[in-house]
Amino acid sequence: MSTASTAPVAGLDAARLQISKTSSPKPKLAPESLVFGKSFTDHMLAIEWTAEHGWAAPQIKPYGPLMLDPASVVFHYAFECFEGMKAYRNKADEIRLFRPDKNMARLNASAERICLPQFDSEELIKLISEFVKLDKDWIPTDRGYSLYLRPTLIGTQPALGVGAPQNALLYVIASPVGPYYPTGFKAVRLEATDYAVRAWPGGAGNRKLGANYAPCIKAQREAASRGYQQNLWLFGPEGNITEAGTMNAFFVFKTPEGKRELVTAPLDGTILEGVTRDSILELARTRLDQNQWIISERYCTIAEVKAAAERGDLVEAFGAGTAAVVSPIKEIGWKEAAIFVPLQEGKECGELTEKVAEWIGDIQYGKDVHPWSALI
Amino acid sequence: MSTASTAPVAGLDAARLQISKTSSPKPKLAPESLVFGKSFTDHMLAIEWTAEHGWAAPQIKPYGPLMLDPASVVFHYAFECFEGMKAYRNKADEIRLFRPDKNMARLNASAERICLPQFDSEELIKLISEFVKLDKDWIPTDRGYSLYLRPTLIGTQPALGVGAPQNALLYVIASPVGPYYPTGFKAVRLEATDYAVRAWPGGAGNRKLGANYAPCIKAQREAASRGYQQNLWLFGPEGNITEAGTMNAFFVFKTPEGKRELVTAPLDGTILEGVTRDSILELARTRLDQNQWIISERYCTIAEVKAAAERGDLVEAFGAGTAAVVSPIKEIGWKEAAIFVPLQEGKECGELTEKVAEWIGDIQYGKDVHPWSALI
Repeated sequence: MSTASTAPVAGLDAARLQISKTSSPKPKLAPESLVFGKSFTDHMLAIEWTAEHGWAAPQIKPYGPLMLDPASVVFHYAFECFEGMKAYRNKADEIRLFRPDKNMARLNASAERICLPQFDSEELIKLISEFVKLDKDWIPTDRGYSLYLRPTLIGTQPALGVGAPQNALLYVIASPVGPYYPTGFKAVRLEATDYAVRAWPGGAGNRKLGANYAPCIKAQREAASRGYQQNLWLFGPEGNITEAGTMNAFFVFKTPEGKRELVTAPLDGTILEGVTRDSILELARTRLDQNQWIISERYCTIAEVKAAAERGDLVEAFGAGTAAVVSPIKEIGWKEAAIFVPLQEGKECGELTEKVAEWIGDIQYGKDVHPWSALI
Repeated sequence: MSTASTAPVAGLDAARLQISKTSSPKPKLAPESLVFGKSFTDHMLAIEWTAEHGWAAPQIKPYGPLMLDPASVVFHYAFECFEGMKAYRNKADEIRLFRPDKNMARLNASAERICLPQFDSEELIKLISEFVKLDKDWIPTDRGYSLYLRPTLIGTQPALGVGAPQNALLYVIASPVGPYYPTGFKAVRLEATDYAVRAWPGGAGNRKLGANYAPCIKAQREAASRGYQQNLWLFGPEGNITEAGTMNAFFVFKTPEGKRELVTAPLDGTILEGVTRDSILELARTRLDQNQWIISERYCTIAEVKAAAERGDLVEAFGAGTAAVVSPIKEIGWKEAAIFVPLQEGKECGELTEKVAEWIGDIQYGKDVHPWSALI
């Protein structure tokens, strides 16, 4: 189905793919020297769109610069959205994408939010699969390594009037990445932030728009200057915890009844609808003992976390996202005090954090054969 | 003064300007066929920046595409801010910029907000002046015509990690534009919008960031589908009027004491700090009879405007911005009702709207010699 907004234009069609291979392959970096998002494979996928004609023939071509008119709306009005997803390769040379349908749905939702064109999700998954197979030698086969994929959609109309773009470019680049924590988990310190606000009701914080990132970097830099890796974004007079830097945030509490409660913020329009977040919730609901566990999407304030920590009822906390899967949290700075989060004896993470990372990793690399993990 | 954040790097220096003229000048469009921001002059100004070396030698070169790595942060995280300003040319072939120091200060404030580099304002004004003089034949000399200038600052570091950019590009392009209302004022209809929210305390609505634009286009398109030219953005449960589409909003009320009150929203961090807004406030304070006028930067709700209109105490209303100077408002749609704004008999604007447009136009074209209008 073509879902471009005007009528008789072409839908995205993987069958029209044109491939032009590089004549000068780049040397591959040693796995241990990979830095997230700094080096890229030999090729890229690119598809042009116009309101008049719809999606043009997809192109896989050598990785190289975009040539864009300086008036292009992407430079002026942030007509841009993106996805973060990964391809995983195992020792059997099987390559998998993890829940790519979720990324495609979110990219379409992001595009719709800023009046960029939509596309057929299955066609783009086919195209991304072709691209990954062509550059598969870039993916190390050790567990923890993967190929980070960055689908990006930008408005390219070269005109300064503020309105829905009539030209766009969808492209995908790929960066081989190493394990987020090469030497085992490393728990992070977050700074609870209320003087700056990431998102708000009626805004676009639930979409993966460029616009949600640049305005947050100043607070990130300020937190870093005080020794914190990321911000923990609060919202409203109650100090509701929304999300952590570029990850969703999860907390585990002991309940008065002696159960455990896993808590993350509800999808109220201000929270990024993380694929890892969704996966963790579903796995927790199906794999944890539901007599012992309560799985909650609810508001949780920084004061609640602080009080729980003081009572000894804060069990663990972690961020969740594509880059690290889970990122254990060991401390939260709040109003010049520190909330300490327990870790397991001799480890830099909590028990559930560790379990969730293993569950998802097993699915991603095909050790646990699961419908979420699509062989390509 | 160089204000790049690291120490021994080069400041922006107009004396290092290198000029490379086009060998194929473009044909100029007839003045009556100019469309805002669609056609551009023969040249552009561009200056590269790196955290390591600071500002490189400024270049004036033929207008042409930017070549950027597809991983450049401007495409992913909206590291981009801009200005809108104009050069005015009169029959005596004098060319003026209107309060360029205000635009430079705002661009630096926008850059600071998203961790892009800052620059010496006077140096950039010198460079823009050289650029305008080189392309001056593109500026028609009739009143109402001008050269729209678009200084733009983007982050260009080709890496997907989310952090302060280490590479940036400052460039200026120029588009000859005709009178916003070629046949006299044309009053607009606005839709008061509360289901979508442009800016929030702790956000960046007071800065001219790309991030403030794309997320507003969907609501703009919805308003357009109901016949409104722009949104009138409301905020909070009270329905405070913040600004109108891409303009600041002004209202004139009759007071119970028989005076007139000119009202616009205060600069509380959510309001774009418009140069035209500031100019109107200052002219109103110095040129209107202060026994008859109250000039207010205060919150004003949509309910107040509606009640005033119903009592006959709403005198006029207008938007203010660089494109149109002032844009008279004739109607505001709110909750399926219409608030009608009076216009002068036989004209599409109110009395003060007309007066303000003439005051500012006279300064811009040098009819009223004024310190705001800098001959170049």
